Amino acid sequence: MNVLVINCGSSSLKYQLINMNDESVLAKGLVERIGIEGSVLKHEKTGQNKVVIEEVMKNHKDAINLVLKALVDENHGAVKDLGEVDAVGHRVVHGGEKFAGSVVITDEVVNAMKECIELAPLHNPPNIIGIEACQELLPDVPMVGVFDTAFHQTMPAESYIYPLPYELYEDMGIRRYGFHGTSHKYVSERVAALTGKSLEGMKIVTCHLGNGASLTAIKDGKSFDTTMGMTPLEGLVMGTRCGDIDPAIVTYLINNKKMTAEQVDNLMNKKSGVLGISGVSSDFRDIEAAAKEGNERAQLALEKFDYTVRKYIGSYAAAMGGLDVVVFTAGLGENSASNRCNICKGLEFLGIEIDDCRNDIRGQEVEISKAGSKVKVFVIPTNEEVMIARDTKMLAGK
Amino acid sequence: MNVLVINCGSSSLKYQLINMNDESVLAKGLVERIGIEGSVLKHEKTGQNKVVIEEVMKNHKDAINLVLKALVDENHGAVKDLGEVDAVGHRVVHGGEKFAGSVVITDEVVNAMKECIELAPLHNPPNIIGIEACQELLPDVPMVGVFDTAFHQTMPAESYIYPLPYELYEDMGIRRYGFHGTSHKYVSERVAALTGKSLEGMKIVTCHLGNGASLTAIKDGKSFDTTMGMTPLEGLVMGTRCGDIDPAIVTYLINNKKMTAEQVDNLMNKKSGVLGISGVSSDFRDIEAAAKEGNERAQLALEKFDYTVRKYIGSYAAAMGGLDVVVFTAGLGENSASNRCNICKGLEFLGIEIDDCRNDIRGQEVEISKAGSKVKVFVIPTNEEVMIARDTKMLAGK
Repeated sequence: MNVLVINCGSSSLKYQLINMNDESVLAKGLVERIGIEGSVLKHEKTGQNKVVIEEVMKNHKDAINLVLKALVDENHGAVKDLGEVDAVGHRVVHGGEKFAGSVVITDEVVNAMKECIELAPLHNPPNIIGIEACQELLPDVPMVGVFDTAFHQTMPAESYIYPLPYELYEDMGIRRYGFHGTSHKYVSERVAALTGKSLEGMKIVTCHLGNGASLTAIKDGKSFDTTMGMTPLEGLVMGTRCGDIDPAIVTYLINNKKMTAEQVDNLMNKKSGVLGISGVSSDFRDIEAAAKEGNERAQLALEKFDYTVRKYIGSYAAAMGGLDVVVFTAGLGENSASNRCNICKGLEFLGIEIDDCRNDIRGQEVEISKAGSKVKVFVIPTNEEVMIARDTKMLAGK
Repeated sequence: MNVLVINCGSSSLKYQLINMNDESVLAKGLVERIGIEGSVLKHEKTGQNKVVIEEVMKNHKDAINLVLKALVDENHGAVKDLGEVDAVGHRVVHGGEKFAGSVVITDEVVNAMKECIELAPLHNPPNIIGIEACQELLPDVPMVGVFDTAFHQTMPAESYIYPLPYELYEDMGIRRYGFHGTSHKYVSERVAALTGKSLEGMKIVTCHLGNGASLTAIKDGKSFDTTMGMTPLEGLVMGTRCGDIDPAIVTYLINNKKMTAEQVDNLMNKKSGVLGISGVSSDFRDIEAAAKEGNERAQLALEKFDYTVRKYIGSYAAAMGGLDVVVFTAGLGENSASNRCNICKGLEFLGIEIDDCRNDIRGQEVEISKAGSKVKVFVIPTNEEVMIARDTKMLAGK
């Protein structure tokens, strides 16, 4: 069974075609600048060189059409015809409280996704556009929706409720949802495989550190708390997002600095985080380089990022009543030995001891804690696509 | 030497006259409803019954005038004439970055306080009005300003900087300041006295839990991090304040719910916290009573409050690289054994063990942890007034 995994952004689209007999990736690729001049498809059949196809793509339907053509191309295609695409799995960012797991996509499901748009105005619309374009182009192929928020629906009320008037929760759905759920779930399942132990009784903090970043406290294999909230703005310091700040700053900027709510939103989402502090870049490689050259604000940005992650690890240990495992994943988590090392500095009192030699790796699935470390620390490259494909196989097969 | 300590709110005024030879309180009292119909002074000479004086007080000058009259009254006064008031210490909420300690009040200092008004529009104006009224009525008496923010000026940059564009800090002073500094400092100094140990090398988390609430991480006797930020809204769940929330909720309510920034400010400051969740009250006694009768939202409000404090204790242990002492103070911290107990539940892994018998007290200075507890836990009634009086004595004496 072959599953096509689709992840639609506002002007981009990532995909993988996975053979679910052995979970091997047959082909994968990325479309950029959909609806913008210079739209391009970068397609890669496993074992072959990347093909770059520059072609006008006015919308997501054009993009998916081109992806499907690439998948059956006689030179760089991965299957003979589209009949070999047995199901499509779609990543959907926000499932609200409606979706605590993946679902076969029906008209009803699409309508429910549309009801979540207000909560994720940037993310859900392109997800839905991608689904509808696929339905048009592959009318007989079953489709499954996999939600970033679903894994976190197990959070207890004291984790998800905001200390706001309760009516805001009841009437508007203002609560903490959390994101990156597919990634947090994937790496926690890998912990079970790597340790050979059941997740039952295990207390894990998973650190998904990419340009967007979140931590999750996972108790008994279930999300117990997570740093992102109603939106992906809350929590950690990120590339360009501020994470936690005094909420009074928002109204202060509006009242005293004559900014509009939209301008403050833009400032908090696009101009803040390590970019805002450093003034250098949102890319940690640039910031690390600048810090090495003596740029104090770049150094401060790194310290603030590491400090925030470190504090949340302590916070989640307290939330769960202890800590057994810490996992680093996603771009920065998988690749930056220095960040991992600095985050864990001073956490020896929790039983976290990093082995500098073991930590000196990039993108490998390994334990990086010392042999005797009470808390085991792992680097585990995330794989959201295979999780989406697995759920799709399971549900579309029914 | 007698020091009069003044704490001016927008329509209230608290005072204590303290004999600094033995730090005994000669008299204390409270003025309420200044500038509002029904203004009243409740005055108490130590050892006598409380006197309630209802009299029209149009402004803070009227109020202070009445306080001074009460202090020299032949029946309930504490001194013969105002010549025995040797100095006045004023509590000032926000000192910005200008004041890292207490200061003798000069015209220059008052001007600097006025420059901080924008950062504390609710708090600093009445503080300044109180100072100016005292200067008019006691022109020859030295005055000292003691700032809620001063103790936190030792926070390192990674604690005080927000992950926002750095210009907001440089140009507008948008950073974390912290509050309740006088209280956090007082109880930490009591820890040194109670343990007979130097604060050097000691890692303390002080929990000031009143209607306003904040935690401080104190390392080597210095504030290392604290939960309140640019304003007293950030951090813990409070009586009516929300504390930490996704900052995107603020713009969401403005953009999608057509609220003004002022309305959101009001909602976050006056209608949120445990009042918002429970819908019952901002008073923990009312909420506990409702929870006991089966009110689920009241129960959730208590759990959310305790959970947030518990997480911050873990967070600050991680921030300091360990934990030696936890202190509970202020209304709830001093009086609610159940809250203290619930907050510490699950923190045994940090070495925190509460002794239920020792914990069964209200408003006493005692250790409540078990004899063998690795982390010592104390209840220490706060005394901001004596701290203000001490600084006033020290500075006014020069």
